[in-house]
Amino acid sequence: MAGRNHLYIPGPTNVPNEVLNAMHIAMEDHRSPIFPQLLTPLLQDLKKIFRTETGQAFIFPATGTAGWEIALTNCLNPGDKVLIYRFGQFSHLWAEMAKRLGFDVEIHQETWGKGIPLDKLEARLKEDSKHEIKAILATHNETATGVTSDIAGVRKAMDAAKHPALMFVDGVSSIASIDFRMDEWGVDGAISGSQKGFMLPAGGAFLAFSQKALKATETSTYPRCFLDLRDQMNTNKDGYTPYTPNLPLLYGLRKALDLLLEEGLDNVYARHYRLAEGTRKAVAAWGLKQCAHPGFESNTVTAVIVPEDKDARHVISTAFSKYNISLGAGLSELAGKAFRIGHVGDMNDVSMLGAIAGVEMALLDNGFDIKAGSGVAAAIEYYRATAK
Amino acid sequence: MAGRNHLYIPGPTNVPNEVLNAMHIAMEDHRSPIFPQLLTPLLQDLKKIFRTETGQAFIFPATGTAGWEIALTNCLNPGDKVLIYRFGQFSHLWAEMAKRLGFDVEIHQETWGKGIPLDKLEARLKEDSKHEIKAILATHNETATGVTSDIAGVRKAMDAAKHPALMFVDGVSSIASIDFRMDEWGVDGAISGSQKGFMLPAGGAFLAFSQKALKATETSTYPRCFLDLRDQMNTNKDGYTPYTPNLPLLYGLRKALDLLLEEGLDNVYARHYRLAEGTRKAVAAWGLKQCAHPGFESNTVTAVIVPEDKDARHVISTAFSKYNISLGAGLSELAGKAFRIGHVGDMNDVSMLGAIAGVEMALLDNGFDIKAGSGVAAAIEYYRATAK
Amino acid sequence: MAGRNHLYIPGPTNVPNEVLNAMHIAMEDHRSPIFPQLLTPLLQDLKKIFRTETGQAFIFPATGTAGWEIALTNCLNPGDKVLIYRFGQFSHLWAEMAKRLGFDVEIHQETWGKGIPLDKLEARLKEDSKHEIKAILATHNETATGVTSDIAGVRKAMDAAKHPALMFVDGVSSIASIDFRMDEWGVDGAISGSQKGFMLPAGGAFLAFSQKALKATETSTYPRCFLDLRDQMNTNKDGYTPYTPNLPLLYGLRKALDLLLEEGLDNVYARHYRLAEGTRKAVAAWGLKQCAHPGFESNTVTAVIVPEDKDARHVISTAFSKYNISLGAGLSELAGKAFRIGHVGDMNDVSMLGAIAGVEMALLDNGFDIKAGSGVAAAIEYYRATAK
Amino acid sequence: MAGRNHLYIPGPTNVPNEVLNAMHIAMEDHRSPIFPQLLTPLLQDLKKIFRTETGQAFIFPATGTAGWEIALTNCLNPGDKVLIYRFGQFSHLWAEMAKRLGFDVEIHQETWGKGIPLDKLEARLKEDSKHEIKAILATHNETATGVTSDIAGVRKAMDAAKHPALMFVDGVSSIASIDFRMDEWGVDGAISGSQKGFMLPAGGAFLAFSQKALKATETSTYPRCFLDLRDQMNTNKDGYTPYTPNLPLLYGLRKALDLLLEEGLDNVYARHYRLAEGTRKAVAAWGLKQCAHPGFESNTVTAVIVPEDKDARHVISTAFSKYNISLGAGLSELAGKAFRIGHVGDMNDVSMLGAIAGVEMALLDNGFDIKAGSGVAAAIEYYRATAK
Repeated sequence: MAGRNHLYIPGPTNVPNEVLNAMHIAMEDHRSPIFPQLLTPLLQDLKKIFRTETGQAFIFPATGTAGWEIALTNCLNPGDKVLIYRFGQFSHLWAEMAKRLGFDVEIHQETWGKGIPLDKLEARLKEDSKHEIKAILATHNETATGVTSDIAGVRKAMDAAKHPALMFVDGVSSIASIDFRMDEWGVDGAISGSQKGFMLPAGGAFLAFSQKALKATETSTYPRCFLDLRDQMNTNKDGYTPYTPNLPLLYGLRKALDLLLEEGLDNVYARHYRLAEGTRKAVAAWGLKQCAHPGFESNTVTAVIVPEDKDARHVISTAFSKYNISLGAGLSELAGKAFRIGHVGDMNDVSMLGAIAGVEMALLDNGFDIKAGSGVAAAIEYYRATAK
Repeated sequence: MAGRNHLYIPGPTNVPNEVLNAMHIAMEDHRSPIFPQLLTPLLQDLKKIFRTETGQAFIFPATGTAGWEIALTNCLNPGDKVLIYRFGQFSHLWAEMAKRLGFDVEIHQETWGKGIPLDKLEARLKEDSKHEIKAILATHNETATGVTSDIAGVRKAMDAAKHPALMFVDGVSSIASIDFRMDEWGVDGAISGSQKGFMLPAGGAFLAFSQKALKATETSTYPRCFLDLRDQMNTNKDGYTPYTPNLPLLYGLRKALDLLLEEGLDNVYARHYRLAEGTRKAVAAWGLKQCAHPGFESNTVTAVIVPEDKDARHVISTAFSKYNISLGAGLSELAGKAFRIGHVGDMNDVSMLGAIAGVEMALLDNGFDIKAGSGVAAAIEYYRATAK
Repeated sequence: MAGRNHLYIPGPTNVPNEVLNAMHIAMEDHRSPIFPQLLTPLLQDLKKIFRTETGQAFIFPATGTAGWEIALTNCLNPGDKVLIYRFGQFSHLWAEMAKRLGFDVEIHQETWGKGIPLDKLEARLKEDSKHEIKAILATHNETATGVTSDIAGVRKAMDAAKHPALMFVDGVSSIASIDFRMDEWGVDGAISGSQKGFMLPAGGAFLAFSQKALKATETSTYPRCFLDLRDQMNTNKDGYTPYTPNLPLLYGLRKALDLLLEEGLDNVYARHYRLAEGTRKAVAAWGLKQCAHPGFESNTVTAVIVPEDKDARHVISTAFSKYNISLGAGLSELAGKAFRIGHVGDMNDVSMLGAIAGVEMALLDNGFDIKAGSGVAAAIEYYRATAK
Repeated sequence: MAGRNHLYIPGPTNVPNEVLNAMHIAMEDHRSPIFPQLLTPLLQDLKKIFRTETGQAFIFPATGTAGWEIALTNCLNPGDKVLIYRFGQFSHLWAEMAKRLGFDVEIHQETWGKGIPLDKLEARLKEDSKHEIKAILATHNETATGVTSDIAGVRKAMDAAKHPALMFVDGVSSIASIDFRMDEWGVDGAISGSQKGFMLPAGGAFLAFSQKALKATETSTYPRCFLDLRDQMNTNKDGYTPYTPNLPLLYGLRKALDLLLEEGLDNVYARHYRLAEGTRKAVAAWGLKQCAHPGFESNTVTAVIVPEDKDARHVISTAFSKYNISLGAGLSELAGKAFRIGHVGDMNDVSMLGAIAGVEMALLDNGFDIKAGSGVAAAIEYYRATAK
């Protein structure tokens, strides 16, 4: 099909051409004396994205899923109790992982569309006077529902309860796009991946751990090897890696970090907010609802609920096959009930307007009762008013 | 500025990533025994784009401007009389070139917005009973005004006048995008360039000449060397070139031809018509006028006239600096009076809707009395109704 | 430094430009209806490289180290006894991993320079009448010493002992370069990585498991998630992956498989033999010894022992800093005693002659008593005599 | 054939991967307000390569052949007398061009293998008391014979004769590789091309003209348009071009200039001298002769003469088909009598040693009486002794 595919899924996101070029490199000896000149600054600059000065950043040749596992298996002991609020497919999967890995997982089910309930969390932590809960697994941005939780609030709840649990945060679809402050919020393990805000292909798990979490790795008896933080620490300190690194990923990350830091993290966050807000204006103009309840709306992905007599899968299918635009599907219990518009990564106003127009076509084709141009008009007015 | 630049000028056009990749090659020996395996099929397949079986195709490491000069200096003699209808910046430039090269140029000025006046042409040719006119310079698609002339009609006029002049056609912004039929229309010299419908960077002049035109090269006394068709003929016949070829351009052309021929030329034309027609629906919905008079509208570029109290340059400037979208400027006497939207090359519906939405924002920002979303809505309805 | 770096380490190897181009792609929706058109044939063709028809191939977004762990944790139970012969840094690391993961590891130390001792293996297996040994970990190509073990012989020994253990083979630096026959040799788990014979960057663990091994995954109680074969099986069967795939790696693998299968695996093996044999002729001409004992020489890497009064690190350092050529270091107990010349992946005769000439310069600069040109002359004579 | 092609022709030369990546770009509007930020510094930095402060540099989307024509048609008048010493295929072609373009060409034949005879030149210029000779066409580096002429000497001869002719220099295969000093040597028109020392694909004619030459363009009546310097001057002054520029070439040039200026021109010259001298040592060790007579040896290409009973074409053919190494052919009267080894552009010691070893194999295969390794040994000793 002529013309490029228009990609608006919440990851993998569009990789800028400069980043793809930076990945188009000759291989080199990862044990050479100059290799640390690449790796060491990468790990330093990665800390800036996580907004940590006291923590340590890590790069694993793996995915965000591995990131979840790294936090669990390096900082906890087998059978430790962990607490998780589940309100979407990805918090569900993390909970399932913890169960499969043999942890004692306390799952609290929440409405899909809401985030972590801070009051309930605080109450539960206060109740846990023996501190049996060793870690809280917090999903910062639930990609399945387009919901962002209040991580600063999680820290407040923990502090209010004076609870010493580790706080692990799934920031795969938030870090480098949505405001995230590791040190300020007291995050112990921050987990991200290359294929969202970092504007890279999948294949990199980017993580940061607090000193408290790193200390826990020393006593953890959980068996681990490939995903062992200690091997990274032992080699990273000299600028090397415990096994052959994915060189294009490292060089691509170098370029991506340069782009992010040049734009400035606050500007990156503001841009994602604008892109998201324009999208939300369009959804409202169509008379459709977001999955996210008010106050929980994500700036990287919007999950749009279709009326009961409609199947969101048809919208996605029309968009893809007739207009070459890729939207995110509703996952698990949202299958057929929602479609998702990703607005994360290397995007700008005109990109989003193309997406919104494309969605309008797919909605109209599927008999949705909307007015052509209405969503675009709402977004246009918003973007015009807020552009620099 | 984050997010990519959205390019909607009528050339250079967006180069598909596959084509850019095809150009990312190691250099090779252009005198090797296997080099003809690249060049010979290229020249054969190029003929398919020109729709000629009896003519011969050529590739020069130069631009469309060189293409104009090649036709003039290879097939005519110094001082020969040539006829040209001038109705835009590019027909103007071609006429100027012919004058600078010492030809006797008979220029007929036409309204910018119209194309070649077939009746007048026929009358003029009939008048030229001594056949002093040696060549007609016909601008198929006037990029400056968004006007397409009727080349089949030019042939009919020539035949009606039984005039033996050579017919040279500037198809730089039409060939590979708009219906063009060299053999059927009796074109003697067809001139195109790499950076429009061929979806390549500038740097290639792609040409085809009829046997009649090639015969004329043998007797032409015009001094020439770099742009001499004879040197190409002498070397191309064995699969080689008279001087070092631009290898990335050749490999890129290989890929571009594969894409065009796979889509099918008729489908390529139909796609450009649809992209253009949607744009025209939007322009009408905005209440603006095209530069092109009815019946002359181009399928590769639309020149939009702004009201007298507006300056089109401000629209272009706002679009570029505020929204990262590049539009074509009004050239020469259209400066400030028109802006141009390119819809040529590697594009599809969603691309165009992004462009239209972007233009709407720039128009609104400059105080144009249009309704937000109106152009997009008109285009949406058209694209929906006509998409496969 | 002008001119490219000449890379002769045993991985990562030189990635052909076509493969790098194939990886330079727009991201896409890995849940789209057309994604299986990419993944399913990849997994099928990967089986051809492993030479298995009855087994199943897997792609993990990880490294060869992860591949080792996948075999252990998916097909065995915690605490199971595994047998390994250790004769180099990589067999050492695999043994260490098995210990760290809680298996009961029976390590037999062999001379660095030799491979698996088949007689001893057979005797040990016969002794294990209760079949307490659940798996044999066999390093096909020990990258640290340039030693290739006889895997067909391992199978023979197992059969002679009628031992039912699973046979896991580390083929990271052999598969796709050195003769490997999964089905014929009765391999249960074959482990490879992207960055050697597959001519890709690191970041892909490529594996194949026999039906017997896959059956064992069903009963294994070893906790696992990211590296769980079952999740791959559940999603791969429909052409999908359990988490976001590394798309450039998949597209690069597509191209790499095309190149390997087009050349023909037997030709690939023969080419590696020739490249290696020429290198060995050069080493002999220099009067130096290989680490590999006769009969164990690897066709992907040659470890060269330096005289006792020399430090191999100086050779490597001179080669890198003065001549821009990267050689492999001696690892662990070979540090300073050996340097390694990789001859694996996208190489040909002239590449190797450049490497050999470069090594000669570094040897001479470090006072080795060799004759300039001697190694190259020996290799030249061999390559000339055996080239097609 | 596996492994890359080894390219040792004197152009096109190997393009560094960084330069190819710099050319892998999205198209952009060449009339945008930011375009001059690209072009203006390019033209400034290009002057540094030509070593001119008083002259002006130009970039044409064409080839070196066009460069020859630009000098002739812009600075001279039709029928002007020009003087050329012909001693190889490229000086021959330039003379032929001048004839075809209608100039009065005075050709002095010299031995192929020698350069411009300074004594004869001075005598001839003194004889031309009426200053009928309007321009001297000097081939700095004759690519066909591997001969470099003394351009400083040409200037001295002109000054001794107090002759006011313009001096045009073909530096296609010397500039950016061999010492060239436009201002110091009083060069009026310096002609180069992208595909040699500039390490780019063909498709760019890079030129510099003195103020004297530029003044001559004002009065020249030679008809010209595409190759008219005045159109470039009129648009370049504002940072634009007279027709659509080849954007990848410009971005590639940006990177190539950065690489050259970072290495430092004197270091670039010294590197080419070393690469060439090592090659010459090898040729001498083989007992073969260079085409270049002593004192005329080129540092970018060595033409090697084969004994009378041998055919150099067989050497080239064996090298290409058996060893995947591309050598330059003997051209015109050197066909069969010589092969050429290019040592220009992005190369280093190990590259050249690979080339020399490859040539040795091809020579031995064709029954040349040389000793395997002899050429490599000679080059090794030289490179070792002179490397930093």
